[in-house]
Amino acid sequence: MRIVDIREKTVPLASNIQNAYINFSKMTASVVAIITDVKREGRPVVGFGFNSNGRYGASGLLRDRFIPRLQEAAPESLLNERGDNFDPHRVWDVLMMDEKPGGHGERSVAVGVLDMALWDVVAKIENKPLYQVLADTYHGGTADPSVFVYAAGGYYQPGKDVSALQKEMKHYLDLGYRHVKMKIGGASLAEDLRRIDAVLDVVGDGQALAVDANGRLDFPTALSYAQRLEPYGLLWFEEPGDPLDFRLQAMLGEYYPHAMATGENLFSHQDARNLIRYGGLRPDKDYLQFDCALSYGVVEYLRTLEMLSAHGWSARRCIPHGGHQLSLHLAAGLGLGGNESYPGIFQPFGGFADGYDVEDGYVRLPETPGIGFEHKAALYKLLRDLIM
Amino acid sequence: MRIVDIREKTVPLASNIQNAYINFSKMTASVVAIITDVKREGRPVVGFGFNSNGRYGASGLLRDRFIPRLQEAAPESLLNERGDNFDPHRVWDVLMMDEKPGGHGERSVAVGVLDMALWDVVAKIENKPLYQVLADTYHGGTADPSVFVYAAGGYYQPGKDVSALQKEMKHYLDLGYRHVKMKIGGASLAEDLRRIDAVLDVVGDGQALAVDANGRLDFPTALSYAQRLEPYGLLWFEEPGDPLDFRLQAMLGEYYPHAMATGENLFSHQDARNLIRYGGLRPDKDYLQFDCALSYGVVEYLRTLEMLSAHGWSARRCIPHGGHQLSLHLAAGLGLGGNESYPGIFQPFGGFADGYDVEDGYVRLPETPGIGFEHKAALYKLLRDLIM
Repeated sequence: MRIVDIREKTVPLASNIQNAYINFSKMTASVVAIITDVKREGRPVVGFGFNSNGRYGASGLLRDRFIPRLQEAAPESLLNERGDNFDPHRVWDVLMMDEKPGGHGERSVAVGVLDMALWDVVAKIENKPLYQVLADTYHGGTADPSVFVYAAGGYYQPGKDVSALQKEMKHYLDLGYRHVKMKIGGASLAEDLRRIDAVLDVVGDGQALAVDANGRLDFPTALSYAQRLEPYGLLWFEEPGDPLDFRLQAMLGEYYPHAMATGENLFSHQDARNLIRYGGLRPDKDYLQFDCALSYGVVEYLRTLEMLSAHGWSARRCIPHGGHQLSLHLAAGLGLGGNESYPGIFQPFGGFADGYDVEDGYVRLPETPGIGFEHKAALYKLLRDLIM
Repeated sequence: MRIVDIREKTVPLASNIQNAYINFSKMTASVVAIITDVKREGRPVVGFGFNSNGRYGASGLLRDRFIPRLQEAAPESLLNERGDNFDPHRVWDVLMMDEKPGGHGERSVAVGVLDMALWDVVAKIENKPLYQVLADTYHGGTADPSVFVYAAGGYYQPGKDVSALQKEMKHYLDLGYRHVKMKIGGASLAEDLRRIDAVLDVVGDGQALAVDANGRLDFPTALSYAQRLEPYGLLWFEEPGDPLDFRLQAMLGEYYPHAMATGENLFSHQDARNLIRYGGLRPDKDYLQFDCALSYGVVEYLRTLEMLSAHGWSARRCIPHGGHQLSLHLAAGLGLGGNESYPGIFQPFGGFADGYDVEDGYVRLPETPGIGFEHKAALYKLLRDLIM
């Protein structure tokens, strides 16, 4: 049992949208295919992976370091003890050989992309959907039948006025979502409040709306936002300040009584642990958004969940960033609190399996083996090109 | 005044050596040349940069994101207000456009390499050695005439016994160094103590020897090392545990009374701030080893120094990792405490200008404009190939 070939390419993930920090007009993603010599229904098992939006593709790192390490490894060093499947933990150790500790960014994307493809392979070889593999291996066999999802949008865009924002949010509700998220921090506080009021006119309750400042605000500005946001009782206030400014986060938590959310820009269990140690987050209230596809994959995510458990946090507080099918499997298989979703943006990566519509804010997963990229036609077309 | 061309290539930085964490047999570095339309003595001003050892070259990131951003920028957006030189701070903003906060690794190397080349350009256009430019701009005009350096070696190598280690250290003393560093944590504590005893037989005083565990040790092991190291009164005990485990660092500081050193695997001022906030380091005793060539360059290093000053730390506590000429200029021009040096390893990058020998543990810098790579023949040969 061995890896026959690994292919990668960079694809544009460009949209003319922006958050408070960056513009996405040149955003890219890496897609990879891991081709094995294992046959299922007469065809080689192939696993696919990609990285979620926000941090660019990792093509150079994949080509220069991480794919060669896998290709040069002794095939048996990548297998589980029974030798009947690949072992993602052993593969991870091979990928990270001769990498110094600390400095978790970019390479965490390269490893995340390969890890995604490998779990797709592993579940296909086990002939189970990935969430069931994860539940069986790490969660006592119990998977959730459906996963809470929310529609992340409300980006800043040239010419996008309040009525366009309302129309966007109405569309998400029509699609079956019950919770939405919008960007803040890229305009004045007064204008953001007008945008929030307009969205609340559509979604009704403050508990149906999360707001996301994408790490843009300094402490005084974040505090002003917090004071003005408080009466709305929003679903959560996301990433008010720099993702590594744990003191800002902790201080803000002393003044903002409702839920906050952060973590999408922390890419290792060590960084996540520092957030938990120093960020003052509240395990009964706040949300953690670590995204395995940007953070060394599922193997590292399992370490993060273990660290959270040791600190008294439930996996239910985790609602990952990224809106991809892998995190949907993690949510169902490991009992997370839900998953982000980007209906209509970051295509063809945003959204889940075709024909599995969101119903009353929840989505189900297909029963096919693997992650199920084959059930998302536009995405699968792009992934399949890698192996044609 | 504009950038005419930017060239980069990846070069091997391979040695058959290892620390407690990684093997260097496949290590690489990126080298870049920034070619301008400015003429000095009839020839175009060209700046060179490279990254120091430990984190691999950044070729893919340079080619995919960072070089294109510089090339696509309006030439005047890269200049200072008078328009008579490039402005590294403005260049930095262009480089980091559309980069999300957090996740500081790899891209910090790509930016560091370009920033090094740009400061070489800036000083050549000013017709001054870089340390003088830095002193004039940020340090009241006063530069140190020479810089404290120590010889970093003592790596683990196949077949290297205690007598070879002693011979290596003796060689450093013969070269003019008065302080040396060796690796620990890659063998048993008992064996490491034998190695330390052997080196002390050569260098004499514990204050002449630093030891470096490269982030390998967990807390119980680090504590055992600290207890056994204490009687030696060493120069410092470096990176005992994971570079992001600030609690380990702080706790160890409660049990180890002598100096510790860390920071080479923190690549932003935000990460450095967390070390200062949470790591329990002692401003009268400990050393900080942030390496600008791996950490977004001099522009970010200036932010780190500002942060340190705000927390009551003197720049004299900084002795950067990396052993390169840029940090030597920072040390002389900004009043740092010294610089690492790798006599004989990581060639042709390790070491300083030819003919400027270490005297009694200090080294002087050449007076030529720029960083002075032209004074290091083996390195300059490699850099010059970029522009032939």
